[in-house]
Formats: sequence, C-alpha cells, structure tokens
Amino acid sequence: MPKVVIAGAGLVGSLNACYFAQRGWDVEVYEYRRDIRTMDHVPGRSINLALSQRGKCALEEVGLKDYIVEQGVALYARLVHNIDGKTFSRQPYGQPGEHIVSINRRHLNEVLITQAESSKKVRFFFEHKVRSVDLDKKELHVSFIGGSRIPKPGQSASSAKVTDIVVKADLVIACDGAYSAVRKSLANQPRFDYSQEYIGHGYLELNILPKNGEYALEPNVFHVWPRGQLTLIALANRDKTFTVTIFAPFSEFENSMSNPKDVESFFKKNFPDAYELLGRDHLLDTFRRVRPQALVSIKCRPHDFGNFVLLAGDAAHAMAPFYGQGMNCGFEDCLVLKEMLDACNDDIPKTLKMYSENRVRDAHTIIDLAMYNYEELKDLVNHPSYKLRKKIDLFLNWLFPKTWIPRYSMVTFTRMPYHKVVEERQWQDKMLSRLQYSFASIAAVLAIVAAYSARKHGVL
Amino acid sequence: MPKVVIAGAGLVGSLNACYFAQRGWDVEVYEYRRDIRTMDHVPGRSINLALSQRGKCALEEVGLKDYIVEQGVALYARLVHNIDGKTFSRQPYGQPGEHIVSINRRHLNEVLITQAESSKKVRFFFEHKVRSVDLDKKELHVSFIGGSRIPKPGQSASSAKVTDIVVKADLVIACDGAYSAVRKSLANQPRFDYSQEYIGHGYLELNILPKNGEYALEPNVFHVWPRGQLTLIALANRDKTFTVTIFAPFSEFENSMSNPKDVESFFKKNFPDAYELLGRDHLLDTFRRVRPQALVSIKCRPHDFGNFVLLAGDAAHAMAPFYGQGMNCGFEDCLVLKEMLDACNDDIPKTLKMYSENRVRDAHTIIDLAMYNYEELKDLVNHPSYKLRKKIDLFLNWLFPKTWIPRYSMVTFTRMPYHKVVEERQWQDKMLSRLQYSFASIAAVLAIVAAYSARKHGVL
Repeated sequence: MPKVVIAGAGLVGSLNACYFAQRGWDVEVYEYRRDIRTMDHVPGRSINLALSQRGKCALEEVGLKDYIVEQGVALYARLVHNIDGKTFSRQPYGQPGEHIVSINRRHLNEVLITQAESSKKVRFFFEHKVRSVDLDKKELHVSFIGGSRIPKPGQSASSAKVTDIVVKADLVIACDGAYSAVRKSLANQPRFDYSQEYIGHGYLELNILPKNGEYALEPNVFHVWPRGQLTLIALANRDKTFTVTIFAPFSEFENSMSNPKDVESFFKKNFPDAYELLGRDHLLDTFRRVRPQALVSIKCRPHDFGNFVLLAGDAAHAMAPFYGQGMNCGFEDCLVLKEMLDACNDDIPKTLKMYSENRVRDAHTIIDLAMYNYEELKDLVNHPSYKLRKKIDLFLNWLFPKTWIPRYSMVTFTRMPYHKVVEERQWQDKMLSRLQYSFASIAAVLAIVAAYSARKHGVL
Repeated sequence: MPKVVIAGAGLVGSLNACYFAQRGWDVEVYEYRRDIRTMDHVPGRSINLALSQRGKCALEEVGLKDYIVEQGVALYARLVHNIDGKTFSRQPYGQPGEHIVSINRRHLNEVLITQAESSKKVRFFFEHKVRSVDLDKKELHVSFIGGSRIPKPGQSASSAKVTDIVVKADLVIACDGAYSAVRKSLANQPRFDYSQEYIGHGYLELNILPKNGEYALEPNVFHVWPRGQLTLIALANRDKTFTVTIFAPFSEFENSMSNPKDVESFFKKNFPDAYELLGRDHLLDTFRRVRPQALVSIKCRPHDFGNFVLLAGDAAHAMAPFYGQGMNCGFEDCLVLKEMLDACNDDIPKTLKMYSENRVRDAHTIIDLAMYNYEELKDLVNHPSYKLRKKIDLFLNWLFPKTWIPRYSMVTFTRMPYHKVVEERQWQDKMLSRLQYSFASIAAVLAIVAAYSARKHGVL
C-alpha cells in the first residue's frame, strides 16, 4: 500500500488521516504542537466554527457527521441587533429547517484525532515539525522538537533536544495551516503563483457567560451587531456560553480602544446590549491581555508539486472568516481528493493534476466571496436593497426550489463547486435585471395606453 | 556617520552604494556572486536594457549620466516588422529628439561598482550571501561562500568553506533581486502583503551578428515583430550586434518549438526576415542549449520593516519587461530615497515611513502598466484604433506640450510619479470621450438643421 505523510494534525490534517486510513494506505501525521488532547489550554485560533453542508458531507464519509452535529448548536437565522440595544430583525438563513451548526474547534479536532488513531494504519508524531520537502528524493525533513517549547521543571529551554529526521513517502498532504512550512519550502518552484493579503481589520474574541444557568441570548441564531466598519458577532456554545468576536479596523482598535475608559465607552455606545452581557470586568481584562489578531487571505496556484505534494486546507487557501467556509472548504478538500483518487484508481500523479486543475479555481472563488461577504455583514445587512434582494431570492427559491437558490444557500447548503455558485449568481442577476426591464417596459406601455385612452375620452 | 548595509551589488545595489557614499555614510555591500568585473561570463538576466528619463536622472545625481548614455545606442522609434518580412511601419516614441537608450547590463553594472568603490566610505564583500535580518538586534546574518560554487582545480565543492558572520548596521537596503533572501526572511512580519505572479509567457534571448562589419538592421529603432500571442524584439548593442528576445506562451514553446525542425519552420513562418538574420545554426544551437525563462511580477506592501530595512529594486517590485521600466524604476528608488532622506534630515524611521507610503503605490502601478503594455506590444501595435489614439496623442501633445502628454511619454520621458501617470491618463480618456460626445452632438444638430432647411426649401 502507498504511504502518505500528512503535515499537521489540525482539523484538515486529522480528517485527511481518517480518509487515508479508510483507503487502506499507511498514514503518518507529523504535528508541531503537543497532542491537544493532553493540553490544558490550546493557544491561538478561534474557539468556535460554523459547520455547514460541505463540512457535513466530508464528515459523513468517515461516519462522524451525526455525532459531531449533535455536539453543536444549530443556527437557523441571523439576528441583527440594532444600535438602540433593544430592537432586532431576524433573517432566516434559508428555507425552514436549513441551518448551520456552531461547533467547538478543540472538541472537533480531538474527535478527529481519536478517530484517525483508532485505525492501525495511522501513526501520529506530535512535537515533530515538518521543515521542508525534497521533491526529487521524495522525502520530508522533519525536526523532533519534544520538550523544546515547554521546558519541564529544572530543564532550561536550550537543553531541549532537537533531532532532525528524514521521512520517505509516496505522497505528502500539507495541512500545516496558513503559514505552512511545506508551502514555504516550495515557494521557489518554477511558476508558482502566490499571494498573501492582510485585510485592514483585526479581530478579538470575548465571552458571554450563562445567566442564571441559562443562555444569556437566544442560542439558535447567529447574533450580529453591524455598525458600518465595525461588526460584533456571537455564536452559542454547548456549555451555554457565547463566543463573541469583534471585527474592527486596526486604526479603530488603536484610536478608540487603547485604554480601559475608551473600551468601555466604545462598547456602551456601539453595542449597548452586548456590553451589559459581556460585563465591564471581562471586557477590560480581555483588552488588557489580548492584542487584536490579523486576518489574511492566501491564494496559490498550483496546489500540487512534483507528483508528490498537495496543499490542503489553510495551507492552500486561507480565507477571511466572513462566510464561515474556512473549515468547510478544507473538509471538502479531503472529500474532493477522495473522489478524485477513486476516479483515477489511486494513480497519484493523475489525481494531483486533476485535483489542482479543479480545486484552485474553487479555492480562489471562495476566498473572494469570503472577503465580499464582509461588506454584507458590516453594512448591507441593514441596507433596504439587500433585504429586498434577500426576500426576492427566498420567494423565488420557494417557487423554484431546484432552479433558484440564493447565493448564501448555494455556498452553505449545497456542494455546488464554488465557481459554479458565482456563475449561477451571475445568471440570476441577469434574469432579475431583465425582469426589471420587462416590468419597466410594461409600466411604460400601460402609461402610454392610459394617456392615449384619457385623451381619447377627452380627459386630457 | 550612520552605517548602511546594502544586500546585492547588482544595478540598484551598486547605484545605492554611490548615493550613500556621496551622503558620507559608511557603506558595506554584500554580494552573493563573485565580482563580475573578474568573470569571463555572467550567467542569467537579459543582456541589454532600455535606459529612459527616470534612470538618467538617477545616474545624473552621481555624475554618470552622460558617460553611460554615450556608451549606449539611442532608439527614437518602434519599427514594426510585418509578417511578409518586407514591409515595416514606424512609430516615433515621442516628439523629435525624445529617445530611450539601449545599454549593456554588464558594462553598466561594472561602471557602477567601480564608481562606488572609488569612495573610501564603501566596502564591497563579494561571495557573501545575506541570509536573513534580525529587526530587534538590528543585524544581518551573512555567509561567506568564497570558493564554494566554483571549486579550484584539486578542490572539491564540499571542501569550500562557509563562514557565518553577523553584521551590525543602522540601515539595510535590500537590493538582492526578485528572489530576495532579505524579503523572504521578513515574509512572516505582521500584516506584510505579498504576491508573486508568473505570466503564461516565457522568453529566450538570441543574437544577430554584424553584416559586413555593419549593423544588420537599422540600429536607432526598437525592432518589434508583433504576432498576437508571440512577440519578437531586437535592440542594438554598441558592438553592432542585436540582442533579440522572443516572448511566447510556454505552451507554444512546448508545442511549436520543441525540436530543430519545428523551430526552423516556426521562425520561417512567423519572422521570415529575422530568421534570415539570426541564421539557422545560431537559432537551433540556442534552442538546444537554453530553456525559455519565466517572467514574474512581485508586489509587496510595505517596503520598510522595523525602522531598519528597506526593499528596493526587484526585491520590492519585480515586473514584466514590457515597459522597459524595471531598471529605471529601481534607479528612481535610489533617487526617491535620497530626496526623502534630504527632506527628513537623515532621520531613518521618518524617511522609511515616508518612502514606503509613497513608493508602494507607484511600484504597484508600474507593475500593472508593465503587464498591460504587453497587450499593446503583442497586438495593439497593429490595431487601427491604437494607431489612431497614438496619432491623436502626439498631435495634442504637439498642440499642448505641457498639458497633454501621451502615457508612454509620461512613463518614459518624465519623472511624474507612476500613479499620477494613471490619473492623468484617466483624465485624458474622459476628455477624449467628451470630445467624441461633443462631435456627435454637433453632427446631430447639423443633420437636423440640414433636414429642416431641406424641407423648408422643398427638397424633402
């Protein structure tokens, strides 16, 4: 059986391990961090994620969908909090029953590692950093960094051992995240297109605790406080807390939230109801401890190298979080790869070529959509024309459930390739503008007929 | 006096050394290659370059302009070679007297190194590779690689010594080219935007030798054979040879130029007159020895890091060669930096901030213009509407020499910031379309008056 080496035991890496175990391949996973199942606190990354159709389909393939969905909180609509702190408007995500699921990142990752490890074909190597890849020799250069980052009592950091290992493989899947070391080691490959683009906004995570042992807000909706350049969102967790995220321009963080007094008045003014629920102490404590984090979009082409390496997940396509598709797209990568390996009878060069040719376009599309969706989140949610379009879309979708699917629904509730979503939306836009034109023509004809008739009858 | 370290002794690095020597700073230049003045053959990079106004101004500042221009060949127009191999059309670059200068890269580089070295403030370290930069400690990590690449007789490559050195500095200017090691070592800096994009075309250089001791083609024009996706160009050298470059899609190189027979018939068909001058043997020999090279555009933001490092030249903004601005833009970097150091009284943090805020926008603009100009070169040169616009531009420029300058002239014959060139062109486009609209309105009024008058006089 071929041997696949996976760089990274995050969400996409560990799901890929499950897939290849099912395939019967020998699987080795090298992960920089310690086993998160043994850690008290996992640093970095957002606490919860929205699982939607693409992610669900990918989990179903390894028999985990129902279990994971049960562990989450279903969200059926956006609930927009107005600035008065008292009134709201509700926008269903799709047709009745359609929903996304708020999931705890760490729990999901732990389930995936445990599932992968339950196969005899899979071996995990924690505290092993993949440093680079040699395409000619088909090998990886890995460093064992055990103990180097968290020295034990009586051990200095410098006494930690670093051991370099060379690992042979038939295929490498780089799931080592947005700052992928594997991708970096391939950055000089001929004709490798690459871009990293930071958006002007940063984010910071906060918490809303339960109130009298119950959710402090309605749990089964996506809470959003759109305020132009600023946006606050809240997603429910199973422990009755909410994870709250503020998105704001870095300049806004620097100018309006640089000291406790400013933070307090800023939240009171912009998010009065959220301020009450977050609580002054928690708010100020978080702003004192944590710096706002940057958001990056990463695009590259191709995703495959030398019939040997494939980039997947954030290593191939880090995106802004505004469409809730980062994890879903990464999980779908695993499923697409599996489908193509099936189609190519496990021929690695053929599969990688086919995968890259198809998936690059879809990845670029969802990265752009994710950026664009921020415009919606931050402003358009409150814009009358946006609301009208949303209503027209849902009405037409109700009339023609198979042919007229709103863009959000195509992305979130189907597995239609992302680039097709955009084509479909362009067709819808054309239809709507023709319809408008027809309405205008009919109105004009009616007006002329009315005028003519009025004149004929001596009214004008 | 402050100490500046320059990474790279290429064109931009060695010109920067001249500038800082003039400023009285201590200058150290670390260059990966051996001293090119001692080499028989300098590998890589194109043989000749087109020097225009921005480059000339930058050379003038260090007293080298006249000397360098004298060593080149002035080009006053494009000469388009038609596919029949017999007819041509001539397009002047600007007003009479305006011209660009074809310059030999190696000679120019040698003159710049010698000029810089003539100052006691400057020290060159050849065969020293700058590997990375430490922003906190304000130091560079450099490896001496002397002898490692070209082992002497009796010495094996592995016996060459590699010594690591730490160099302190007040300022680092990274002029280490498109694949800049300094830039790479800073790629993880927070919010560093970066993109590398390869175009689908490759290029390959050829030569036309003198004929009976004279230039085989008219020397004082830029020769171009535009053939849609394919383009051939030729620039004269002082030794009466021409450097000829073919640009073609990589797929075209693979499909139509993969064996001697194909190369021959390809050139005979597309460039019959050039084929005669290149000669069959030289053509086939070059295609056998050399693979087509890729072309990359590199953009990044910012160009400065930690009040310590500045990227300049290709390290900051590699671009396609189609506007002949790569070197000119890099030379202008030196001049812009000098102007800003003057304005900021040598305050390094203030200068770097001001430089990056201004120069990034201009660099991005010329990179886009350089890509766009390929569209012109490859096709529009032969397009009637392009020719018409060119004529209107030159006519209006003749009428209003100060206010109406064609885009090519603004880029090539002025020092107007590149982003202003684009703004100016947008204004010109608006004026022309208004003019068209006015002409159409006047024509319509005239037609109505004519019709009315005809009717009045009983003609209609």
